[in-house]
Amino acid sequence: MKNKQWLLASRPHGEPTRENWEFKETDSAETGAGQIKVKVEYISLDPAMRGWMNEGKSYIEPVQLGDVMRAGAVGEVLESNSDEFAVGDKVYGNFGVQTIAVSDTKGVHKVDPALAPLERYLGVLGMPGMTAYFGLLKTGLPEAGETVVVSGAAGAVGGVVGQIAKIKGCRVVGIAGGADKCGYVVNELGFDAAIDYKNESVHAGLKEHCPDGVDVYFDNVGGDILDAVLTRINLKARIVICGAISQYNNTSAVKGPANYLSLLVNRARMEGIVVFDNARHYGEAAKEMAGWIQQGKLKAKEHVESGIENFPETLMMLFKGENFGKLVLKFD
Amino acid sequence: MKNKQWLLASRPHGEPTRENWEFKETDSAETGAGQIKVKVEYISLDPAMRGWMNEGKSYIEPVQLGDVMRAGAVGEVLESNSDEFAVGDKVYGNFGVQTIAVSDTKGVHKVDPALAPLERYLGVLGMPGMTAYFGLLKTGLPEAGETVVVSGAAGAVGGVVGQIAKIKGCRVVGIAGGADKCGYVVNELGFDAAIDYKNESVHAGLKEHCPDGVDVYFDNVGGDILDAVLTRINLKARIVICGAISQYNNTSAVKGPANYLSLLVNRARMEGIVVFDNARHYGEAAKEMAGWIQQGKLKAKEHVESGIENFPETLMMLFKGENFGKLVLKFD
Repeated sequence: MKNKQWLLASRPHGEPTRENWEFKETDSAETGAGQIKVKVEYISLDPAMRGWMNEGKSYIEPVQLGDVMRAGAVGEVLESNSDEFAVGDKVYGNFGVQTIAVSDTKGVHKVDPALAPLERYLGVLGMPGMTAYFGLLKTGLPEAGETVVVSGAAGAVGGVVGQIAKIKGCRVVGIAGGADKCGYVVNELGFDAAIDYKNESVHAGLKEHCPDGVDVYFDNVGGDILDAVLTRINLKARIVICGAISQYNNTSAVKGPANYLSLLVNRARMEGIVVFDNARHYGEAAKEMAGWIQQGKLKAKEHVESGIENFPETLMMLFKGENFGKLVLKFD
Repeated sequence: MKNKQWLLASRPHGEPTRENWEFKETDSAETGAGQIKVKVEYISLDPAMRGWMNEGKSYIEPVQLGDVMRAGAVGEVLESNSDEFAVGDKVYGNFGVQTIAVSDTKGVHKVDPALAPLERYLGVLGMPGMTAYFGLLKTGLPEAGETVVVSGAAGAVGGVVGQIAKIKGCRVVGIAGGADKCGYVVNELGFDAAIDYKNESVHAGLKEHCPDGVDVYFDNVGGDILDAVLTRINLKARIVICGAISQYNNTSAVKGPANYLSLLVNRARMEGIVVFDNARHYGEAAKEMAGWIQQGKLKAKEHVESGIENFPETLMMLFKGENFGKLVLKFD
């Protein structure tokens, strides 16, 4: 059985290009004791992948040169030497950017294709959904009546953040690039307003749409947008640092938030989150979110691209803001 | 009775100069109903004064052009139309940079010159002490065995922060400018180590003196030092933003912390503080700190300059790092 895979060939300086990757076709490994073999059907494309390509300490080990690129994925069990998984089970795991994965089942769990399409387990029912849920509720601590702003609002995490904030009774303002995305978060996801950072002033938009200031800011992008929001925060505001996609491909230093002294003036807090810290509570969160989905309060959108060959370019869509909803790559 | 005062004449661009001030000698105002007249003996020089000179929203109103410069001060009651204060009482209040103040007694309280020299009520027994106490204990949340780093370590706030952290059983590393200050915080105040940012690499110093990383960073300075500490923080670290003296005289934008994504990697928090929020609890804090002083666990040092004429130059000593301990100006 042939396995197609993308290996990390070199560490990028700035934007990753085809040269940083090596495409390899090889015989799939044997399924050893306790292991399962999985036919990967969808992989998740995440901004965090850019960080995994760098050398050096982060919240997770970097991908080593010559290794299969790390990726969350869903697929079907083809062979099983594990008591936990049977042939035909649909599973989520860290299977990497390859069509056939052999796994020791660590971090693998079953998903139910009858409850939701498989790709949804990479989005609202997967890590992005968990990131939004715990980041907003545990660190953002929104209260009914407060104003919540989220950047990357049409993305996998941002869209869920805004919807949960609405469920909690907040005024929600999204920041996204382009009229389509802004229309989507207001008309489809029910945000109160959206600011199109590509075509309008974020400063002016915040002033207009957050007349009572900003109590919670969930930041996926960093850079100038973070700085703009810092000028509008309220006393005791909470800024959740989930990511900084605008800075990941920098070839010079990251742009730090020049307006960070607004934290002092407003006795406000800026706090970083990593979803894995909540692993023990994923179950409860998934249950609550499934309820919201059933009640029509939480909508999901996946952006599906096809073909493992297209992985390098598909990943770049994230940094160009070309995805609309959770970006996944479907394998044949 | 003649009153000498410094008025704010213009708003500085960058470093304040003599041109931003107007010296005025005038007859002191009448003491109206409910008011007291105070002979000011010491005023407090604080980095925050630089911010009060700027236009625009902050945690407190800016000083208006033509107004007496705001300053915390201690002095003696000369006349009293208040039931609360008697002639001869020593009092603390926001009396401003002037030799004779007439006050409606708002924010004024008596101090006891038998318990401590008057100038100490502007330092460890005043706002800097309160800032250190509440900022460290309520926001830094240090635990015994943790490593606490403080910048401006030989200053009015930093010296108290480090000593309280020692009382709480922490390893304490100070950052200060020059061998004298570093020697002082280690030998006099009992810090475990000090890093001389003027003569050594802060990165290397943190690596050497914080072998277990940094759990709490109390920041008085901002800029490159904040960025250096961000590279050494531990999981769940707390960064207390008390000030950013390195940035207050910038003529270009404040330098934001380029390494702020370390907050994400380490699930850490950066939070701003303003001492006034704790006003209701000053009494308890003063009592506990007085106990520490009596037990010899908390030492105080004031740097006394003389003569109201010298106010503009004395203020600048803060930004040049020329003060050693709490900087006050004594009036004749």
